[in-house]
Amino acid sequence: MCRFTLYLGPPIRLSALVVEPKHSIIQQSFHSTGQDEPVNGDGFGIAWYVPELSPEPALFRSVTPAWNSSNLSELARVVQSHLILAHVRAATKHGGQSEANCHPFRSGPFAFMHNGDIGDFARLRRPLLTSLGDPAFDSIAGNTDSEHLFALVLDELQRTPGSGVEHLAAALQQAVARVTLLGKLHGNGAPSYLNLALTDGHSAVACRFTTEDDYDGESLFVHTGRVYVCSNGVCRMLAPERGRGCVLISSEPLSDDPGWDALPRNSMVLVTPEGTTSSRPLLV
Amino acid sequence: MCRFTLYLGPPIRLSALVVEPKHSIIQQSFHSTGQDEPVNGDGFGIAWYVPELSPEPALFRSVTPAWNSSNLSELARVVQSHLILAHVRAATKHGGQSEANCHPFRSGPFAFMHNGDIGDFARLRRPLLTSLGDPAFDSIAGNTDSEHLFALVLDELQRTPGSGVEHLAAALQQAVARVTLLGKLHGNGAPSYLNLALTDGHSAVACRFTTEDDYDGESLFVHTGRVYVCSNGVCRMLAPERGRGCVLISSEPLSDDPGWDALPRNSMVLVTPEGTTSSRPLLV
Amino acid sequence: MCRFTLYLGPPIRLSALVVEPKHSIIQQSFHSTGQDEPVNGDGFGIAWYVPELSPEPALFRSVTPAWNSSNLSELARVVQSHLILAHVRAATKHGGQSEANCHPFRSGPFAFMHNGDIGDFARLRRPLLTSLGDPAFDSIAGNTDSEHLFALVLDELQRTPGSGVEHLAAALQQAVARVTLLGKLHGNGAPSYLNLALTDGHSAVACRFTTEDDYDGESLFVHTGRVYVCSNGVCRMLAPERGRGCVLISSEPLSDDPGWDALPRNSMVLVTPEGTTSSRPLLV
Amino acid sequence: MCRFTLYLGPPIRLSALVVEPKHSIIQQSFHSTGQDEPVNGDGFGIAWYVPELSPEPALFRSVTPAWNSSNLSELARVVQSHLILAHVRAATKHGGQSEANCHPFRSGPFAFMHNGDIGDFARLRRPLLTSLGDPAFDSIAGNTDSEHLFALVLDELQRTPGSGVEHLAAALQQAVARVTLLGKLHGNGAPSYLNLALTDGHSAVACRFTTEDDYDGESLFVHTGRVYVCSNGVCRMLAPERGRGCVLISSEPLSDDPGWDALPRNSMVLVTPEGTTSSRPLLV
Repeated sequence: MCRFTLYLGPPIRLSALVVEPKHSIIQQSFHSTGQDEPVNGDGFGIAWYVPELSPEPALFRSVTPAWNSSNLSELARVVQSHLILAHVRAATKHGGQSEANCHPFRSGPFAFMHNGDIGDFARLRRPLLTSLGDPAFDSIAGNTDSEHLFALVLDELQRTPGSGVEHLAAALQQAVARVTLLGKLHGNGAPSYLNLALTDGHSAVACRFTTEDDYDGESLFVHTGRVYVCSNGVCRMLAPERGRGCVLISSEPLSDDPGWDALPRNSMVLVTPEGTTSSRPLLV
Repeated sequence: MCRFTLYLGPPIRLSALVVEPKHSIIQQSFHSTGQDEPVNGDGFGIAWYVPELSPEPALFRSVTPAWNSSNLSELARVVQSHLILAHVRAATKHGGQSEANCHPFRSGPFAFMHNGDIGDFARLRRPLLTSLGDPAFDSIAGNTDSEHLFALVLDELQRTPGSGVEHLAAALQQAVARVTLLGKLHGNGAPSYLNLALTDGHSAVACRFTTEDDYDGESLFVHTGRVYVCSNGVCRMLAPERGRGCVLISSEPLSDDPGWDALPRNSMVLVTPEGTTSSRPLLV
Repeated sequence: MCRFTLYLGPPIRLSALVVEPKHSIIQQSFHSTGQDEPVNGDGFGIAWYVPELSPEPALFRSVTPAWNSSNLSELARVVQSHLILAHVRAATKHGGQSEANCHPFRSGPFAFMHNGDIGDFARLRRPLLTSLGDPAFDSIAGNTDSEHLFALVLDELQRTPGSGVEHLAAALQQAVARVTLLGKLHGNGAPSYLNLALTDGHSAVACRFTTEDDYDGESLFVHTGRVYVCSNGVCRMLAPERGRGCVLISSEPLSDDPGWDALPRNSMVLVTPEGTTSSRPLLV
Repeated sequence: MCRFTLYLGPPIRLSALVVEPKHSIIQQSFHSTGQDEPVNGDGFGIAWYVPELSPEPALFRSVTPAWNSSNLSELARVVQSHLILAHVRAATKHGGQSEANCHPFRSGPFAFMHNGDIGDFARLRRPLLTSLGDPAFDSIAGNTDSEHLFALVLDELQRTPGSGVEHLAAALQQAVARVTLLGKLHGNGAPSYLNLALTDGHSAVACRFTTEDDYDGESLFVHTGRVYVCSNGVCRMLAPERGRGCVLISSEPLSDDPGWDALPRNSMVLVTPEGTTSSRPLLV
């Protein structure tokens, strides 16, 4: 599948997500745990917000394996941001990698990433496209199930006026519901695995979801605290205090410190701009 | 725009199209003539048929500029085929190059390439997709106008039973007609430039077409003879004889020898497996 | 050859060098002026300093043509620095492009780039390598003449204790003298073209130099002022004032505003951390 | 480390080495066995001889992981040769991958590949280079230990007149001896792992060698027979007969059929143009 990490909190250096932790995203590109296949070598991507310059996140994507990218190592040294998304890809189909198929995906201020896949996507693709409004339809540049899922999210964001974390949560919930319905109508019974992360540059939401019975789906962990610090190759979350905190949402724990909580099956977590989290079931 | 060359005839080394001629495809990637922009540096592709091993052509595509590809130089030395397509790309939109967006495109035994663009493609894309049968719809992996055009061609090939050069010609003609109609129905008046080449591994057809008035469209040349030979950096077509011949169809003449005939505006040329050519108007 | 730009002054957005000017580095990758070959499509590189995080500049290099790099466009939007180097490459030899062969080159706090070539480099390479101390020898990862030139610069920087702009200037001068001498001893008479830029993150030096008689060498321009601003696609240098200024050193003027002064043949320009410039002959 | 396979015998389709076997080279890029690290995702390369067109082998190399290369899959379908080398790379140092650093390496008719590494290479590199004649010195384009090893081989081939399998064997033996001696003189005690394959387009030699005590070195297997056939995804060597045979030399067995013999520690195998093998100790 894939692996992703989202950070929201006080500005942090990209290296604290991508390089320094024992199970950093670069490590996960090579040696992920809890997957049948430990390699996520089919490209990677990073999105980070620089609010003083632009509401749109900066995007850096490459078909190179993350462990091999000098440019990623360089950016990790000098990029700092309060809101970062990082993704390493294990392509469902091999061959034909392109930057357009790498996560995160972006549209305006929104950034999105996915770990998992849509069951029977080849059967669902055409009715899914038909269901989209023109702006969401036009946003698709590649041919991954993940980008089509993001188009559903954008479609929901555009249909319903609003903003803030509840607006994001509603769009994510509806996108998952639409995929599930499309699967029932047009699919052949293959389950979907939809671990998703979505942000507008201020708030963020993420979910762990599967339509497979008797399986909890791909793993997803949440870790909250005051600040995430790395020193001499050991990273840990400092205990929370009152006021502004930080949140890490990650396919697997980046570090061995306690406090990484597995998100339950078919639930979502909402993160406010202040770094406050709450979770709820994701029912479709 | 782009530049392309198609060869059909006795087996020829790829280098005789790609490297050796004064205006070889590699030269055209850097120094094409008769274009506003002389650079076609946004990737390239080669398709060649090896009928004793497979009815599907082999495909080699890269986002590297052709002039920079060691792998292309190597293949040019050792690939021999009776039917070769070569294309260098100048992307209409910059950014996001991918192998999936490089020509030639292939589906089963068919290979296709395009020089030009569909006017108002962003407006036409959705109704074009809606008009396709499922197999043609599913064939699209990238987001270029050219690949959508190939999907129209495939749609026509599948709708009408048949085979041979007239089957190819009818499909090409119909695909051009459908684009033209879509432009009238949904476009904003921007003209289309549709220089196309299509083959099934035996016969080939190509057209020079534009919907712009008072302009002949992108150039396209046809050169026929017995065999195309290169010696000491000078390439030329040997005069035709009775029996099996060879044909070059190229955006610009590869060499300075006489006999490169410009295809007239809005016409097509048909090439039989024996290398016999005939041309006719392409009316839509 | 190649094209490069160096900026030193108040923090500026990378887009003001790479994207927005009429003759930006991306434009120069496609449409450079004053060269026999207008295309510099064999890769590019950017180095920028983030002194609050590291004395080593960040480096982003790619074999993609600059005009085609989505990642470069993204970085241009969000990178800000007081000291930026940008380079687009036209490889002397085609084939085998690699990131290691792209400029700028970096070692510790030093960054370096080159426009031109060393005459008879194949003959000079071995004695050049023999003349290097081990650290400079070990710094070489690729096989370009430019990186070997940087090794000479590093060798000089390490041989002579010191720091500051005069230390840089002496090293550049000596490196040029060593290449010239190597050419006399081992070359076959082919002239060298050595337009170079070097910085330590605080000061910078650049030179325009050739061993060819009756030719001024590749062009190099210097532009000084208070601040370089871009608005609605028009960029210009605001007139200097007392106090801290900014400097642009560029293979060709980025914009049409007055004040771009050609550096004379065989001379160098020194830039202090305050943005004050002075020039002097470069005699070898 | 890396993984490689060499085939010599009746013309075989590349897919029979690269795609079809259960443990094909593409499988070994993802899931090699008998290594601490199962991934060889840092590029790949193929060399194959087309004697009717050129004495120099064709070379196709890419920094893409082999499992991701559409171009490799395509070539596997249509390339046939009597002598093929295939290599998947696990870089000793991450970052800065380039085609020039991918195996096989080639010079004139010779092709070479390596699995392992030279101990203390950074210390040995300079005296190694000093020891080379100019042609071997000039052959080096990248910065891998493997390419430097090939330069030693070329140096030996040029020093001693001769040809044929014994000429290859002597050069390989001498190159290994020179590396071992350089290690004793300039190294720090780190062992070398030198599994090598070398061919001139007619004969081939390969060795399994290490300077580490109490360890047999990286694995290397030899399989001989009449012809290697793949059918319905099962590949096997047909039993030898009198007359011309075929040989597979591979880091790990490609298929589960019997007859894959491990080459003993510190020995070499010689293969004649007729496919006859013999082995002998490699003593230095």
